[in-house]
Amino acid sequence: MDEHALAELTDVLPDGVVVTDPITMEKYRFDRSQDTGTGTPALVVRAEDAAQVQAAVRWAARHRVALVPRGAGSGLSGGSSAVDGGMVLSLERMRSVEVDADCQVAVVEPGAFNAEVKEAAAVHGLWYPPDPSSYEFCSIGGNIATNAGGLCCVKYGVTTDYVLGLDVVLADGTLVTLGGKRIKDVAGLSLMKLFIGSEGTLGVVTRAVLRLVPEQAARSTMVATFPTVDAAARAVVAMRRTMRPSMLELMDQASINAVEDHRPRGLDRSAGALLVAQSDAPGTARTEEVALMSATCEAEGATEVFVTDEAEEGEMFVEARRLAIPAIEAQAALMLEDVGAPVPLLPDLLAAIGEVAAAYDVRIPVIAHAGDGNTHPIVMYDPTDAESEKRALAAFREVMQRAIDLGGTITGEHGVGRMKKELLPAQLGPDVMALTRRVKDALDPEGILNPGAVL
Amino acid sequence: MDEHALAELTDVLPDGVVVTDPITMEKYRFDRSQDTGTGTPALVVRAEDAAQVQAAVRWAARHRVALVPRGAGSGLSGGSSAVDGGMVLSLERMRSVEVDADCQVAVVEPGAFNAEVKEAAAVHGLWYPPDPSSYEFCSIGGNIATNAGGLCCVKYGVTTDYVLGLDVVLADGTLVTLGGKRIKDVAGLSLMKLFIGSEGTLGVVTRAVLRLVPEQAARSTMVATFPTVDAAARAVVAMRRTMRPSMLELMDQASINAVEDHRPRGLDRSAGALLVAQSDAPGTARTEEVALMSATCEAEGATEVFVTDEAEEGEMFVEARRLAIPAIEAQAALMLEDVGAPVPLLPDLLAAIGEVAAAYDVRIPVIAHAGDGNTHPIVMYDPTDAESEKRALAAFREVMQRAIDLGGTITGEHGVGRMKKELLPAQLGPDVMALTRRVKDALDPEGILNPGAVL
Repeated sequence: MDEHALAELTDVLPDGVVVTDPITMEKYRFDRSQDTGTGTPALVVRAEDAAQVQAAVRWAARHRVALVPRGAGSGLSGGSSAVDGGMVLSLERMRSVEVDADCQVAVVEPGAFNAEVKEAAAVHGLWYPPDPSSYEFCSIGGNIATNAGGLCCVKYGVTTDYVLGLDVVLADGTLVTLGGKRIKDVAGLSLMKLFIGSEGTLGVVTRAVLRLVPEQAARSTMVATFPTVDAAARAVVAMRRTMRPSMLELMDQASINAVEDHRPRGLDRSAGALLVAQSDAPGTARTEEVALMSATCEAEGATEVFVTDEAEEGEMFVEARRLAIPAIEAQAALMLEDVGAPVPLLPDLLAAIGEVAAAYDVRIPVIAHAGDGNTHPIVMYDPTDAESEKRALAAFREVMQRAIDLGGTITGEHGVGRMKKELLPAQLGPDVMALTRRVKDALDPEGILNPGAVL
Repeated sequence: MDEHALAELTDVLPDGVVVTDPITMEKYRFDRSQDTGTGTPALVVRAEDAAQVQAAVRWAARHRVALVPRGAGSGLSGGSSAVDGGMVLSLERMRSVEVDADCQVAVVEPGAFNAEVKEAAAVHGLWYPPDPSSYEFCSIGGNIATNAGGLCCVKYGVTTDYVLGLDVVLADGTLVTLGGKRIKDVAGLSLMKLFIGSEGTLGVVTRAVLRLVPEQAARSTMVATFPTVDAAARAVVAMRRTMRPSMLELMDQASINAVEDHRPRGLDRSAGALLVAQSDAPGTARTEEVALMSATCEAEGATEVFVTDEAEEGEMFVEARRLAIPAIEAQAALMLEDVGAPVPLLPDLLAAIGEVAAAYDVRIPVIAHAGDGNTHPIVMYDPTDAESEKRALAAFREVMQRAIDLGGTITGEHGVGRMKKELLPAQLGPDVMALTRRVKDALDPEGILNPGAVL
């Protein structure tokens, strides 16, 4: 990086905001996907407010420097992998959360963690529903960038359903305010929605107005054990026909055993699959809904059904489900999938994943936000064995292709990033790719925003 | 219209699709806003399928003919007013509705009425929630074009929350398929959301995949009478803090009396305002929620609170609320507002509307989707009195400005169309307008799609 050029930036930003020493920069190179293709940035800017974000973007635009926005670095698709010679624009210092209880909104800076928004809302008896499994260490900015989902979205929807307003710094440094504290607003194009899920390729979010709802009612939890993944998947399809569980998660045998190896939770290691479902229907309706869930699981061949109204006991099973990824991470290197299909095709998708695992001789434990048809096959490999990694990568791609063949998606909630972009044209087709390119070019004509991600 | 050019189109489309006789075309000139600035089209194309839409758009692009897409013509902002010498592209013949009960979606052509989707869903025990007051005669295409709301969106959200997939014909005639039957999908930019609420300025929707949910539970209805609009508005704010009613509507004294004049429903003509609220909480929770609603209204000064668990009796009040616009239409010419504000500012917005009515010496009855802070002030005037119309127009504009001043919006659910576009820059500001223009130019570089609407 030209020192003259760099000085232009350091002159206008406070000490400590711009970082260029390689040791400090190292931790800004990777997200959680550990993308091996990540680059080495020339600088990291740790912005403290929107004005500093604007200064950084303007500087990058002037010098044609690639700029990768970054929240908590918990992304799973390489969406914030650094670019060689580029800038990483970290939003980690912008973390304020203000709750307006009368409006039932939280006004949040992008670096705030999802859990921090939930906590601030709870103080006022309010709730921010979106709950990625990583909610304790993922940022709202990243949630918005990927339109993140989670466990409760089977009933409560995903991030985009809760964003009422965004401040966005555009590629030329202009700050625009879109939406606001109004619940309904159709004045002008839906530009705000365009930025949600855009993975830092269209602008940098500096503030969000998030919708809150009254706190969730008490939940009952049902855990059902099935002899096969297929039987569990069929029970999911049946349940989705008649009720709205507030959670409907699946773990296959391999992920159950990984959790038991990692941190024993008393799960049945011999089960072919496990469903963890919850109901938060109010009053006596909850008992009825859970009874209906249980009956449906039994009719679909569940060998054991356990129900608890105790919050802590229920949370133990949910936690076991959330533990699956860390548990498998502890065993091997992994490539995390996020494929989805229309709900009735969930059994077919799970069967296809099993076929791919067999064909490529790789282990692919599966957990799933089953009620949404969204699965996380976890392709395991030995990073010291090039052959193993090669097979894993081929399987990773094949799983995406199989999802596409079923009318599904290569990513339900993690984003395309850099890990999945090769398969994006196969899903969207050339006309949608061309339209995507036109929108990208209109908003970022110089291509400085997160180049190499998505497109 | 050049006959040679016209023949290019009639040659490729079946008889009866292209209409040029002035008498038949007359009914395609206006939407329900009766926009006096509407034009006289050169032709109307009543497309029967997506291929015919493509042919019409390609022809319009080749000959640089302005093209106004049109659904049922029930729009309230002049969004489908005809353009002089242009084409009206009517989707009224594309009305198929297919329900996929296993996927819980309806695959719908744009001309299908909202009520037809609800009916088709109900056969399978499913429900399509968005419910504009015009649901019996408005089309899904128009609902998508305006991101329409309605009465139940206070709990269930608006149109965009239920669109999973769209087929769209772009300005050059390309047909793109966005989204699908997958519930969660973040592969690529949120292009689908961009078309929702775009009022025909970015493309023509030819098919939608709409999300359905299990049928709504039984509802109880509460009707509360207040001495003033302000007291009623304060009760709304209080209710929204602690519960999620499935409907929360307001009528002021003038709209109550208009309904009683038009079709007597036994409403209290002396009431300052009326709230009609519903709860659809399951089981015993419903009784509790309605009791809490009633107590809240009483605490905020309601003079009478009436509760019924009878569906028919409840529907009578809801129907009275829906009758308000036709009742006022029967009395005078009107300009229908759609302004909104953050919910806690609802009392201020209603007060501002009263001030505008007094200042401009016009009658402005108000009905409101109060729980969302979205109001419909109805500016009445005598169409035979130019002075009255002038005052009404000034009041119409002033109401929008007052909503903007409160951090609100000029349109919550009807769209900008041609009636409200003058005030759009005042709400969005120059930077957002410039961004809007960039997106519009990227998608419709020749400006053939609904010119004069929104922008």
